[in-house]
Amino acid sequence: MNRLNSLVPDWIRNYKREHLSDDLIAGVLVTILVLPQSLAYAILAGLPPQLGLYASVFPVLIYALIGSSMIQAVGPVAITAIMTFALLSPLETPGSAHYLVLAASLSLLSGLMVLGFGFLRLGFLSNLLSRPVVGGFISGSALLILLSQIKVVLGIQVSATDNWGQVVSIVEQLPLAHVSTLALGGIGFIVLLGSRYFLAPWLVQRGMASSRAAMAVRVMPLLVVMVATALSVALNFNPTYGMQLVGHVPSELPTIGFDVPTFADLQMLLAPALVLAFIGAVQNITMSHALAMKRHERTDANREMMGLGMANFVTAFCGGMPVGGGLTRSAVNLASGAQSPLASIVSALFMLSIVLLGTQWFSFIPLCILAASIMVAAIGMIDFAGLRRAWRYDRADAIAFLGTALGVIALNLQMGITLGIFLSLASLLYRASSPHIAVVGRIQGTEHFRNIERHGVETLPNAIFMRIDESLFFGNLKAIEDRLMREIGQRPQTQHVVLIMSAVNHMDVTALESLNEVLLALQTRGIHLHMAEVKGPVQDRLMNTALFENLAGRIYLSVNAAFELLRSKPLA
Amino acid sequence: MNRLNSLVPDWIRNYKREHLSDDLIAGVLVTILVLPQSLAYAILAGLPPQLGLYASVFPVLIYALIGSSMIQAVGPVAITAIMTFALLSPLETPGSAHYLVLAASLSLLSGLMVLGFGFLRLGFLSNLLSRPVVGGFISGSALLILLSQIKVVLGIQVSATDNWGQVVSIVEQLPLAHVSTLALGGIGFIVLLGSRYFLAPWLVQRGMASSRAAMAVRVMPLLVVMVATALSVALNFNPTYGMQLVGHVPSELPTIGFDVPTFADLQMLLAPALVLAFIGAVQNITMSHALAMKRHERTDANREMMGLGMANFVTAFCGGMPVGGGLTRSAVNLASGAQSPLASIVSALFMLSIVLLGTQWFSFIPLCILAASIMVAAIGMIDFAGLRRAWRYDRADAIAFLGTALGVIALNLQMGITLGIFLSLASLLYRASSPHIAVVGRIQGTEHFRNIERHGVETLPNAIFMRIDESLFFGNLKAIEDRLMREIGQRPQTQHVVLIMSAVNHMDVTALESLNEVLLALQTRGIHLHMAEVKGPVQDRLMNTALFENLAGRIYLSVNAAFELLRSKPLA
Repeated sequence: MNRLNSLVPDWIRNYKREHLSDDLIAGVLVTILVLPQSLAYAILAGLPPQLGLYASVFPVLIYALIGSSMIQAVGPVAITAIMTFALLSPLETPGSAHYLVLAASLSLLSGLMVLGFGFLRLGFLSNLLSRPVVGGFISGSALLILLSQIKVVLGIQVSATDNWGQVVSIVEQLPLAHVSTLALGGIGFIVLLGSRYFLAPWLVQRGMASSRAAMAVRVMPLLVVMVATALSVALNFNPTYGMQLVGHVPSELPTIGFDVPTFADLQMLLAPALVLAFIGAVQNITMSHALAMKRHERTDANREMMGLGMANFVTAFCGGMPVGGGLTRSAVNLASGAQSPLASIVSALFMLSIVLLGTQWFSFIPLCILAASIMVAAIGMIDFAGLRRAWRYDRADAIAFLGTALGVIALNLQMGITLGIFLSLASLLYRASSPHIAVVGRIQGTEHFRNIERHGVETLPNAIFMRIDESLFFGNLKAIEDRLMREIGQRPQTQHVVLIMSAVNHMDVTALESLNEVLLALQTRGIHLHMAEVKGPVQDRLMNTALFENLAGRIYLSVNAAFELLRSKPLA
Repeated sequence: MNRLNSLVPDWIRNYKREHLSDDLIAGVLVTILVLPQSLAYAILAGLPPQLGLYASVFPVLIYALIGSSMIQAVGPVAITAIMTFALLSPLETPGSAHYLVLAASLSLLSGLMVLGFGFLRLGFLSNLLSRPVVGGFISGSALLILLSQIKVVLGIQVSATDNWGQVVSIVEQLPLAHVSTLALGGIGFIVLLGSRYFLAPWLVQRGMASSRAAMAVRVMPLLVVMVATALSVALNFNPTYGMQLVGHVPSELPTIGFDVPTFADLQMLLAPALVLAFIGAVQNITMSHALAMKRHERTDANREMMGLGMANFVTAFCGGMPVGGGLTRSAVNLASGAQSPLASIVSALFMLSIVLLGTQWFSFIPLCILAASIMVAAIGMIDFAGLRRAWRYDRADAIAFLGTALGVIALNLQMGITLGIFLSLASLLYRASSPHIAVVGRIQGTEHFRNIERHGVETLPNAIFMRIDESLFFGNLKAIEDRLMREIGQRPQTQHVVLIMSAVNHMDVTALESLNEVLLALQTRGIHLHMAEVKGPVQDRLMNTALFENLAGRIYLSVNAAFELLRSKPLA
């Protein structure tokens, strides 16, 4: 009984009745609002539109029951869709039967990988990605989305598969643009872009509450698609003007099943699945964490991965479109007052009924209007502000951002993310390898020690007090040794060197051994090495090492104690 | 004239006449002492023995004129020799004509790469390798040396080329060992191993000065080889007992030239050359640095690389054996009183005269005795003590050591060093991602703040003082946020959180943005975030950021100032 009980999520056992109406309303709202994008993202991924609907049903249910977030929702999202397209289109023609098999296998593999991360409690892996790297990755992906959709709005065919070839082909074919498609898509694009950036402020200025104004902005894509579809039906867009529509969306459940891929397929998909799993997991953890903070809740990275992993595992058997944590979905959830994953369950069931009861109207949606809404969403994904902030604050972080984005565009997703991780680790290592070091003296009449270059301080003629503002490790020992030797070279009368260790949180073996060698080398020259303010954990480890023995009695609790002691010693 | 002058090394322009006799004696001593190992290491590398002699002439001269170390000497060394063998033997049969072309090309390429490192001032790259990784790499290589020489001492033929196959084959053929070869090699091995570990202490015990005793140990290999060679000549080892000898060593200069490799060869050699260049450069920089410290001198990493690079460039045209910074050579230099690179020049010229005047005796040296001396040197290269120290002091460093050594043995040199670098970076990231965090309180009657878990301290009911003992970056922000939220969760009456930043030396963009989000999230819950003791460089960067604006007025110079201020505020 207890065991069975533990399988029921906490939120169900502790469900508060007063939340029921909130959750019901939010669930219905979310379904309607994300409906156009569910179709659009499936098309973006190179898959039939109904797969976007299926991916809004079963994975959503599973995640609601397993995930740790009260408010996060998974489903078909832009980043997962463009990743699916970018990872699979070099391997197979989008839309072909084999492409569908690959997409389902990709969901399955990446789902299993994310599950594996969760079981192995590898939540901390998400710490590998810095924000600039994630920002660069998403921005680069957004550019790929724009590139893939611009030809739909122009109503042209592009046969090139590489990014540069597509750009060239689009520019060449600009004069051949399909006028009515471009007109409708262009108007939709401008209306959506305008409403995204100007509608909310305008409404607020007119006295609307800002939360309602934000909701109004979220309703706009649905409204635009509805108007365009109504026009499409009324004016016979396809036969009369030759505009491309979504086309038949079957009003039926997906055949539950999974076309077993060949071994060669699986091998080919390993690296792409790892990228999808890794990025998906990090996105999901980061977003659920950010949402939870807003609601004073906490999430569990490992349970998040179990939820996302299972959702992708399940989607593989119900169509096969990979899913991820959805920013729009979750934001709509939050904005429409959802209180628990029940909202997601309601949304999934409502979407299921739509699939079963009526999808015939969807076939009239003009593709160019979906493309326009995707493009506006993609523009919102480009993190200009983040890049600007990084550039101003820390050039290395800006380089990691640009490197990742450029890698995604010029090479591929895998190389982009690898480059990004490499750049962040390199900057971490580089930064730590040129530590801040200050030679300090005592401020007259106090026990405070400050940089002798910046303050008028008291010094001892035969002693150097050096503060190292960084943990000691293999990467920075050489720099510290060099600095120490330079200072001693400039003060030939030096008999004592005091290392102030107040900012040293850790010493690795390389540091330990190098410092011991420095101590011995100085000893042969009649110079004594001392240490002051060694932190507890560092000192604990130092015990029983050669360095500790050689320092015998020359480790001081405070810099001032060392200063007083050395001052009282006569000059040799 | 000035320009010409600047081409003459400092040590020549400032040469002190009184050093001349020291340098002359040291040069002659070094030549005689390293002669057997020069032959032995060439054979170890899979090259004809005379190449070891050539590599002790021209590269030595070049390095003496370019390098920055007064005492370091380059030449044929064990680690470079085994690397040459390990890198090239999978590509070509050792000893074949094409193998010689590959070896020369490897010298050339790695020389050019090291030169490139030097020109680009990439000396800091050596910071990538921690001591445990270098120790693991050298220890793994030493095991490869042992494996390659044990069959020579046993006098058996092993056809397997993979390491495991060789071990199996050696064990299988143990009963077939060539008795007289094993007897001579075994006695040589035991005498050398014994003298290495017991001779010096024994001599010192008998009243010899320890520097002379160390020199005596260094003379032993030469002595053992001379005795074995005398026996070989007197007793006709080869025809009578079927023992393998070094064989003909031509008494002539190398043909100056370079067999141009094919493009395919060069492509194949790129990765091996990079490994050789990287390890060679790091070894050379580390060793020259350690030697210079003992002599109160300083070295220049970039000039060291120019010297080593040119030495390998030159060796490619004079036989082709790659060279490196030699521990034995340099130690003998130091021990025999060398004062300047003139000792190396004397040594090179003396070696040249030996090559020209008489190498006929070398042909009688039994191979097994060279193998025995190589094996003893290899045992000395295995850094048991370093591994033991690392294991006791820091498990992560020990794992990096073992991982590198295992990678070298079980995979190959390239994978070994890559694995090692990966493991050190991972441990760096992992360590930094679980920072030490302490909630602190004030020690009654002082301005000192200490961990509330360890000390009886004064606290405020509505404020949390949290000290973060690590720089803030993408890898540890999640852990800090989690800890903060946990502490707040345990103290529901919290209205103020003070982050003590005294140990924070840097904040990256991820940290900046995450902290700002934490601040805003806390604000919605009526909790104020404060900072105290923010370091100068960190605060400088904080200016003009959203975090700084949102913190407005809540950054304090000292923890005590924050404590006093918050204490005087009434509870809300």
